Amino acid sequence: MSSVFGNCIKVSIFGQSHSESIGVVIDGLRAGFKPDIDKINAFMKRRAPGQNAVSTPRSEADEAHIISGLADGVTCGAPLCAIINNTNTRSKDYSKLKEVPRPAHSDFPAFVKHSGFNDIRGGGHFSARLTAPLCFAGALCMQLLEKENIYIGAHISSIKDVHDSDFDMVSVSKAELEKLKNAPVPLLNQEAWPLMEQTILSAKAEGDSVGGIIECACTGLKPGVGEPMFDGIENRIAQAIFAVPAIKGIEFGRGFESAKLFGSENNDPFYFDGGEVKTKTNNHGGILGGLSSGMPIVFRAAFKPTPSIAKEQDSVNLLSKHDEKLKIEGRHDPCVVLRAVPCVEAATALAVYDLLLENV
Amino acid sequence: MSSVFGNCIKVSIFGQSHSESIGVVIDGLRAGFKPDIDKINAFMKRRAPGQNAVSTPRSEADEAHIISGLADGVTCGAPLCAIINNTNTRSKDYSKLKEVPRPAHSDFPAFVKHSGFNDIRGGGHFSARLTAPLCFAGALCMQLLEKENIYIGAHISSIKDVHDSDFDMVSVSKAELEKLKNAPVPLLNQEAWPLMEQTILSAKAEGDSVGGIIECACTGLKPGVGEPMFDGIENRIAQAIFAVPAIKGIEFGRGFESAKLFGSENNDPFYFDGGEVKTKTNNHGGILGGLSSGMPIVFRAAFKPTPSIAKEQDSVNLLSKHDEKLKIEGRHDPCVVLRAVPCVEAATALAVYDLLLENV
Amino acid sequence: MSSVFGNCIKVSIFGQSHSESIGVVIDGLRAGFKPDIDKINAFMKRRAPGQNAVSTPRSEADEAHIISGLADGVTCGAPLCAIINNTNTRSKDYSKLKEVPRPAHSDFPAFVKHSGFNDIRGGGHFSARLTAPLCFAGALCMQLLEKENIYIGAHISSIKDVHDSDFDMVSVSKAELEKLKNAPVPLLNQEAWPLMEQTILSAKAEGDSVGGIIECACTGLKPGVGEPMFDGIENRIAQAIFAVPAIKGIEFGRGFESAKLFGSENNDPFYFDGGEVKTKTNNHGGILGGLSSGMPIVFRAAFKPTPSIAKEQDSVNLLSKHDEKLKIEGRHDPCVVLRAVPCVEAATALAVYDLLLENV
Amino acid sequence: MSSVFGNCIKVSIFGQSHSESIGVVIDGLRAGFKPDIDKINAFMKRRAPGQNAVSTPRSEADEAHIISGLADGVTCGAPLCAIINNTNTRSKDYSKLKEVPRPAHSDFPAFVKHSGFNDIRGGGHFSARLTAPLCFAGALCMQLLEKENIYIGAHISSIKDVHDSDFDMVSVSKAELEKLKNAPVPLLNQEAWPLMEQTILSAKAEGDSVGGIIECACTGLKPGVGEPMFDGIENRIAQAIFAVPAIKGIEFGRGFESAKLFGSENNDPFYFDGGEVKTKTNNHGGILGGLSSGMPIVFRAAFKPTPSIAKEQDSVNLLSKHDEKLKIEGRHDPCVVLRAVPCVEAATALAVYDLLLENV
Repeated sequence: MSSVFGNCIKVSIFGQSHSESIGVVIDGLRAGFKPDIDKINAFMKRRAPGQNAVSTPRSEADEAHIISGLADGVTCGAPLCAIINNTNTRSKDYSKLKEVPRPAHSDFPAFVKHSGFNDIRGGGHFSARLTAPLCFAGALCMQLLEKENIYIGAHISSIKDVHDSDFDMVSVSKAELEKLKNAPVPLLNQEAWPLMEQTILSAKAEGDSVGGIIECACTGLKPGVGEPMFDGIENRIAQAIFAVPAIKGIEFGRGFESAKLFGSENNDPFYFDGGEVKTKTNNHGGILGGLSSGMPIVFRAAFKPTPSIAKEQDSVNLLSKHDEKLKIEGRHDPCVVLRAVPCVEAATALAVYDLLLENV
Repeated sequence: MSSVFGNCIKVSIFGQSHSESIGVVIDGLRAGFKPDIDKINAFMKRRAPGQNAVSTPRSEADEAHIISGLADGVTCGAPLCAIINNTNTRSKDYSKLKEVPRPAHSDFPAFVKHSGFNDIRGGGHFSARLTAPLCFAGALCMQLLEKENIYIGAHISSIKDVHDSDFDMVSVSKAELEKLKNAPVPLLNQEAWPLMEQTILSAKAEGDSVGGIIECACTGLKPGVGEPMFDGIENRIAQAIFAVPAIKGIEFGRGFESAKLFGSENNDPFYFDGGEVKTKTNNHGGILGGLSSGMPIVFRAAFKPTPSIAKEQDSVNLLSKHDEKLKIEGRHDPCVVLRAVPCVEAATALAVYDLLLENV
Repeated sequence: MSSVFGNCIKVSIFGQSHSESIGVVIDGLRAGFKPDIDKINAFMKRRAPGQNAVSTPRSEADEAHIISGLADGVTCGAPLCAIINNTNTRSKDYSKLKEVPRPAHSDFPAFVKHSGFNDIRGGGHFSARLTAPLCFAGALCMQLLEKENIYIGAHISSIKDVHDSDFDMVSVSKAELEKLKNAPVPLLNQEAWPLMEQTILSAKAEGDSVGGIIECACTGLKPGVGEPMFDGIENRIAQAIFAVPAIKGIEFGRGFESAKLFGSENNDPFYFDGGEVKTKTNNHGGILGGLSSGMPIVFRAAFKPTPSIAKEQDSVNLLSKHDEKLKIEGRHDPCVVLRAVPCVEAATALAVYDLLLENV
Repeated sequence: MSSVFGNCIKVSIFGQSHSESIGVVIDGLRAGFKPDIDKINAFMKRRAPGQNAVSTPRSEADEAHIISGLADGVTCGAPLCAIINNTNTRSKDYSKLKEVPRPAHSDFPAFVKHSGFNDIRGGGHFSARLTAPLCFAGALCMQLLEKENIYIGAHISSIKDVHDSDFDMVSVSKAELEKLKNAPVPLLNQEAWPLMEQTILSAKAEGDSVGGIIECACTGLKPGVGEPMFDGIENRIAQAIFAVPAIKGIEFGRGFESAKLFGSENNDPFYFDGGEVKTKTNNHGGILGGLSSGMPIVFRAAFKPTPSIAKEQDSVNLLSKHDEKLKIEGRHDPCVVLRAVPCVEAATALAVYDLLLENV
C-alpha cells in the first residue's frame, strides 16, 4: 500500500503527473459540513505552478472538481472524491528518462520496483503534482479544524542560506498564521524575500536549484490529543509530511538543537495562566509523550534542492547498462520551497485532523 | 489506537513501567524461523539499565520470556508473545507526580487525555521502559533481515557537544555495523567516549542531564523497496522512530544540511559498478521517492536531554491549581543516548522488515 | 470508515446514486498488468440495469472510465481510479423520502446517523448503484486471479421458491464457471428460468418483489491460503459480501445444513488423487480453519426481496413525527438477484485476491 | 495478518493450544473503567471445558490474569494484556497428527501454509482454545456496552434436530437476555435440554458428534450505528463471528427465509412508539443498509458437528503420501454448541463495541 493515510479518515490519493486526472477520495468525513470551495481553491492556488518567476512555467488551473460526497453542497457522510484534470502535459519531454534515470529522483528505484512498468512521464505517481490532491484534502481538513479553533500555518524559514525569522514558539497565534496566508510571500519578514528570490533566480540562471526549510505551527489544539508510541503527534505528522516530495528531515520544537542543551535548559517549566496550564518556554514544540501539551505545535521540515536541474549530470542507461550523461529538458522549479508551504500545511492538517477524530 | 505498528506484521506493545509485566505480540511472522534467543537477550542487554556509571541504577534482568508463537523453538505461524516481568519497581517514588507533573514528560497531557486515570507510576505506558519489548521485537526482525543480508546498526553521533565521527554514507558496510555492536561503546571512534562520559557525569553531578544524536545505517536493502507517498521508507522509519521517547528530530542522508546546497551539489550522480547501479555520493541517504536506491540507508535522530533531573523545577499542582516547585526523586539516566542506540536500531528494524514483506 | 476494503490492496469505493460520478480507487495493484477493458465492460454489463423485463428500466451505459493507474494501458504501480458517470438520474422522484423513510431501506438509520444530512436521492451512498464500481474492481481482480488459474463464478440458486440445481461442490470446475458466464441467464439449468421469470413478473404485476439465493464457487485456489481467526477466508468473503445490498445471510459448504449432521457424515475424508490431497465430499466448502483446503470454495448468499415496492406501505414522517402511508414512485427492480450475480462474484474476487496477495 | 480485530480498538489474540500461555492484548480502551473481574471470570467459566457430561473432560481453571493496562484496578489508557496459562496439556496425544491430518480440521491446510512448521499440538493457534482470550475480550467489551445500556445474549437454537424456540425478534429484551445468562442451560425453554443432552450423549456413545445453531441478540443499540458497504454491522459481526471455530453460516433477521418472501411480507413497516421510530416486525434483524435501526439485532450462526470424533476415518499420510486410516485419540467435545454460546456473544461484543466507538 502507499497512498492511503489515516485511521479515522481514509485519504486515498491517486493519479500520475500525466494521467488523465489526479485526485483524492476522503472517507470518514462527518455529514453536515459545507466546505467553502472558494477557500479551498484559494488554498490550492498557493501551490499551483506558473505563478511567479521562481516556479515552473507549467500553468494549470488546478481546480479540484468534487464528483461525490456532497448533497446540496454539504457533506452527506459518503466518501468525497475530488479530481483535478491534467491538461497541460507534455509527455514527450520525458521519453528518454525511463532509460536514463534523473539523479535524486525516484526514477531508478521506481523502475526496479515496478519492473520497468513505472509511469515515467513527469515522475508518474511520484511527481510533486500529486501534492495538488494532498492540498485539496488538507484544505478541507483545515476548514474542519478551524471550526474547532485549530489553525495551521507555515512560512519559509530559509532558502539556502537566506533566513526569515522563526516563530516565537510560545506565542505564535492564530492571528499570526492568518496574516501569513494573506501575505505576498509566506514570510514573517517580507523583507527577506528579495534576497531569497535573488538566490533562486541566480541558481536558475546557472541551470541549478536550491532548497530550504519550512517552519509550520498549529495553534488551538487542546492538551491530551495524540497517542503513545507509534501514533503520537510527531509520528503521525512525520508520516504525513514525508509524503511531500524533497523533504529530508523534520524536527519538532527545539529539535536537533535540544541535543546540545542541558535538561535544565531544555525542560519547559509549567505555570498556571488563568486556569490553564502553560509552559514558559516551548522547546517541546507542543508535544510531550506523543500528546499535545496545549502549547503551539511547531516543527521544521528540510527540503533538498529541486533534483531537476538544467546542468548536465552523470547518470546511467538502465537498458544498455552503461554510464551516460543526462541533460534534463522540460520545465522545472528552481526551488520548490515556496510552493511547498501549503503542502506542508496540508499534510499537517491531515495528521492533526485524523488524531483529533481519534481523540473525540 | 497507539501501540500497534505495521502493515504486514502487526507489532502490539503493551505494559506500563510498573505493571506486572510488559511485552509484545508480533502477528504475521512466517513459520519456520528459529530465533536465536541468546542473541536477542544480548541485544536487549545493550538497552537494559544499571550497566554502567552513566545509566540509571534500576537494575533488571530484562529477559524476555516467549509464551507463544513457537513450536520446538521455531515460529509456527501463530502470533508470538514475549513478556518481561517488572521486578524492580519502587512505586512509592512516584506518588506525588500525578498532582505535580514533571516538566518535559508526558505526565500533564496524559493526565488530561485520560481524565486523571493515567498510570503515573514510572510514566506508565509512556515510560522508556516500553522500549524493552520494542527491542525484543526489533531484535527478532533484525535476525529475519540478516537472513536477507540486510544489516542495521547505529552509533552515538554526539552527546551534547562531543562528537563521534559520522558514517561514510557511501561505504558504510555490514562489517562496520557488526564491529559497532561488539564495541565497548557504540562509537566509530572509541576515543570519543571519555569526554562523552565526563560530559554526562558532570551533568549528573549538577543534578542535570544531557541529550545527543544517534546515527543509524541499514545496508543490504535492494533497490525498489518502499512505497510512494505515505508509506515511503522515510515515512515509516520516522513513524517507528518517534516511538522511542525523547526523540525530537530525524533527518535522512544529508538532511537539514541539504537545504543549504545547490541541486548540483546535492544530487547524487549514478554510475555502474560491475552491473549494479550506484551513486557516487549518498546525500539521499539511500532513499529516493520513498523507495530504497540500493545505497545504504542513513539517518540521524536527535534526543533531547533526559527530562528527569534532580534540580528543582517549576511546575504546577493540577488539583489545587497553583504553581508549585518540584524536585524529582528516584533513579534516572543522566543521558539516555547510550541505551537508546539499540532502541533506534530496533524501531528501524520493524519499519524495514515490514516494508520488505510488503515488497516481496 | 466504511467503504475501504483490503489489507494488501485498498479498494476505496465512492459516490452516491445521484452524485455526478461514482467510482473506485484500487491501491496496491502490481505494475505490469494489462487489464482487458472489454472484458471488464462485458462483466459490468451483466450488472447494468435496463437489460430485460425483470430489471429496472433505468438505463445507463455504466462504462467505467479509467482516469489513473495505467501507462500505455498497463498498470504502473500507481493507484488505479475508475469513474462511472451518473447520467440518467431523476432526483425529483426521491424528494419526499427524507421525511418518510422507505421500509427495509437504509433511509431511516442513515437519516439518524447523518443528522438528516444523508443524501436521500436514490439512497445515496447506500444505493445498489455502488455495486457498479464494486463490479469494476472485482472484474479487475478476477482477471488477476485468472492468471493464477483461479476462477470465480456464481449462479442463481433460487428465486423465491423456484430452484436451480446446485453446484456439485466436489467437482465444480473452471469450465462450468465459464459456461455460466456465457449462458443467457446464470443458471445451471436454463429451463428453470421461465418459472423464475414468471415469479418475478407476477410479483411485479402486484406491485411486489421477490428475493432469492445466489451460489458462488471459486476454483483453483491452492491449499493453505487464508489466515486464522479474524482474517480467514470465510471472515473476509463474508465481510466483502455483505457490502452487496439486500444480502441477509451467507453459508459456506454445507452451511446451515451441517448443523443437522453427525460428525461422521459431515467430515470430509481425505485421499490422495495423483499426488494431490483431496476430500471425497466437500461439506467444508473448501475452507478449513479459515484456510483453503484446495477443494472448490462454495458458498450461498441469501437476498431479501427488493425493498422498493409499488404497494402502499406503513411508514412514519420523521419531521412531523406521525405515522404516514408511503407509496414509492420511481423505477425499481422487482428482483435484484439476477443483477446481483456479478456483484457476488466481484465481492468474492476482492476478498480472494487480497488474501492471495497476503499469502504470497 | 490474522488475529487482530478492530478499527477503534485493536484486539490481538495470541497463543496455541499447547503453548505456555494464550492471551489477548486490547489496545484502545478508554481510561477510567473498572472491569468487574469476577463477572469476567464467570463469563469465561461458561466457555471452560470439563463442566458437564457433554463437554471435553480437559479441565482447566481458565482464569485470565491481567498483566497490564490497569492502575489500581482501573483502565489507565494503556493496552490491556490478559494471559491464561495452559496447564493441562497432553501433547503426546497429538504426535501423529502432523503426518495424518484430521478430517474437517485445519491440520492439512495449516501444514501446507506453514510448510510443516505449524504447531499441531491441539490444533495450535487454530484450536478452539483460543476462544478463551476471545471470551475475555468479549466479556470486557460487554461490560463497556452495558454501561451504554446495550446487552448481548445468545441461546442454543438447535442441536442437531432438537429445537429451542427462537427469540421474538421484535420484543427480545435486556431482561430476557440476562435471564438466559443465569439459566442452567442457555435455552429459552429449559425443557428442550433433556432431549438435546440425550442427542449429544448418544452421538458420543457412538464415537460421533453433532452440531447446532446459536441465536444471538443485541438490544439497546440506538439507530444509526454502523457504516455502509464493507463496515456495516453485518459485515463486522460476520467477520468477528467466523473467528469462532466450526461456524459455517450466519444469517441476520429473517435470513435465508427472507429469500422466499414477497417484499410486502418481508418489509418491516415503521410506526411511532411514543416518539421513537420502531418497526412492527423485525425481519431485518435490526440492521438496514449496514446501520442499526434501533430494533434488536438478531442473527443465527450454524455450527458444524465437532470434527474430532472417535470413529475411524479416512485420511492421508502427508509424508509417505499414501491414504491412511485415522483414529483420533484424546479428549473432545461431542458437541461444541453449548460452550460456543459465550464465544458467539463475545465475538459479537467486539464487533458492536468497535462500531460503537467508531460512531461516537
